[in-house]
Amino acid sequence: MSDAGELAAWIELSLVPGLGDRRFRSLLSTFGLPTRILSATRSQLGRVVPEALAARILERNKGPEVEKALQWAAQAGHALLTLADTEYPKQLLEIPDPPALLYVTGDVKLLSSSALAVVGSRNATPQGMKNAQSFARTLSEAGLAIVSGLALGVDSAAHRGGLEGRGSTIAVLGTGIDIVYPRRNQALAEEIASRGALVSEFALGAPPNAANFPRRNRLISGLARGCLVVEAALDSGSLITARLAAEQGREVLAIPGSIHSPLSKGCHALIKQGAKLAESAQDVLEELGGARAPDPTPSGSGASHDLLDKMGFDPLDIDELIARSGLTTEVVSAILLQLELEGKIASLPGGLYQRIA
Amino acid sequence: MSDAGELAAWIELSLVPGLGDRRFRSLLSTFGLPTRILSATRSQLGRVVPEALAARILERNKGPEVEKALQWAAQAGHALLTLADTEYPKQLLEIPDPPALLYVTGDVKLLSSSALAVVGSRNATPQGMKNAQSFARTLSEAGLAIVSGLALGVDSAAHRGGLEGRGSTIAVLGTGIDIVYPRRNQALAEEIASRGALVSEFALGAPPNAANFPRRNRLISGLARGCLVVEAALDSGSLITARLAAEQGREVLAIPGSIHSPLSKGCHALIKQGAKLAESAQDVLEELGGARAPDPTPSGSGASHDLLDKMGFDPLDIDELIARSGLTTEVVSAILLQLELEGKIASLPGGLYQRIA
Repeated sequence: MSDAGELAAWIELSLVPGLGDRRFRSLLSTFGLPTRILSATRSQLGRVVPEALAARILERNKGPEVEKALQWAAQAGHALLTLADTEYPKQLLEIPDPPALLYVTGDVKLLSSSALAVVGSRNATPQGMKNAQSFARTLSEAGLAIVSGLALGVDSAAHRGGLEGRGSTIAVLGTGIDIVYPRRNQALAEEIASRGALVSEFALGAPPNAANFPRRNRLISGLARGCLVVEAALDSGSLITARLAAEQGREVLAIPGSIHSPLSKGCHALIKQGAKLAESAQDVLEELGGARAPDPTPSGSGASHDLLDKMGFDPLDIDELIARSGLTTEVVSAILLQLELEGKIASLPGGLYQRIA
Repeated sequence: MSDAGELAAWIELSLVPGLGDRRFRSLLSTFGLPTRILSATRSQLGRVVPEALAARILERNKGPEVEKALQWAAQAGHALLTLADTEYPKQLLEIPDPPALLYVTGDVKLLSSSALAVVGSRNATPQGMKNAQSFARTLSEAGLAIVSGLALGVDSAAHRGGLEGRGSTIAVLGTGIDIVYPRRNQALAEEIASRGALVSEFALGAPPNAANFPRRNRLISGLARGCLVVEAALDSGSLITARLAAEQGREVLAIPGSIHSPLSKGCHALIKQGAKLAESAQDVLEELGGARAPDPTPSGSGASHDLLDKMGFDPLDIDELIARSGLTTEVVSAILLQLELEGKIASLPGGLYQRIA
């Protein structure tokens, strides 16, 4: 965990309008930890982000919202994870735009476990709901955390199935962590908070803004090794999640159905585009078995210490590190960010990195 | 058409027990046309086929069965096609074991048209039957002849759909051409004979021997550019047809369905193995559009004359012909057999071919 001043700085920055995750990350690369970003001058900031944004950073909110978030995070069962936290899920560091801040209610460790996204239509058929719950139950029992979006229909059934197995379930919200949407899922959300995990990247109190949901979908797929689409019409948001999953290198699977059912057309379209046809939970396990190892950057000690050892204390670039470590670009980038945020390395001009601790 | 004496020799050889299509073809390559095979000595034959088979060829049936077949072939609407006939379907020359003789009732030209195999369970669901007929009707209307096996269930529905479009339908029998099996399809068989084509490689009167049906399936796929499986259990004979189709380089497509329907499991297994998922007739047309041209060896004049021109009059081997023509091994082999049977080239020892006319 970051200390309180540092955490406040993360929150302040996360509340700056228009500072997206990619620019936040650029600032981190240039200045180091958030407190250092906040003590930079306007002209220093202006070298990394547009002038208007630099101005907004200096005129940022330092008031009640930051305080509210700190108070929220201090409560039992709540966690506010920053990119610098060792508990921040490593899988998300592999995607191009991991959120700087994650609000979590419930079991934080669940976010780093091997997981499967199970998504689909809000207006699923009764059989689609049964399939979602049954696949989720079996796969949770096999040890996978079931990730979904707390919507009605397939999402709710997937969460229920996940809660029935030992893998449990993770709900990624399109609202602030303190808002339940839709309201009908209040009881389900409470159960997930107590036996699974709720996650949000949005500020406390953020309402169900339509634009947030497609954006949120990248975290549903990003937290998981694969994405199973249960039932989806051709215009379903689940197809966005499946596309993001494919872009993130996750396995995509879909359950087929009657060619006359509009709610199977999205699944069939995915299969035609190369998604794996899933008839049973066993199919999903086999597909994931052929996928990457559960956690490419074992937390803390393992991979990042290895990389530190291989760095020595001379400046070098990422290509050299990839060559020395045998790891992929994505994994090396993720570890470098982590090491930088932990203060163990520094990034130098010209794309060089140097060990400093 | 071969003359009567030659045709009788084809029939006599086709009735020799144990002389399969591949050995028949070896004999043709060595001796030329069937009358020359029949005038060979036992020791000459023994150089190409096992002794016991050579003996059976010399003790062959010359009696009533041959006469019966000649009389059958002489009737209106009947045709007995040999490998040497220009009307013999070129597509079948691409498969490893084309029958030496084909009994045809109905429209012989239909056998050379662009075709799609539509197969599936005998115990199809009502929706499966509707799908089979509807896909077949649309695809026949788009100009494809629908090939199937005259069984109950999907086959019958596919033939009916085929008859409703301009592409019509071809039934490949596992019995003699004069036997209708199952009996319940008598009226359908008559309709196909009058507006489509019935085909069999088996001798007149051959009963519905269980072993003949899987063997017959290679012709269902061989006559077609692709094979669509409508509904099939995991142990369905339709999966044999689909496998043969894939081995023959044909497109394989399957219609998905509920994961809880045993009659969709065969289709799902095919899709997992790489068959294309077909939701609509349009999907089939698109898939075939990406496939080979309708007829890789345009009959008579085109490709075979080109190849003759490129041969010159010196002996050469098939690799040289492939290089000169730019055609595939299969197509060159098919054309060479045709040219040999037409007496335009001779095959020489050592795998060489020479133009002689």
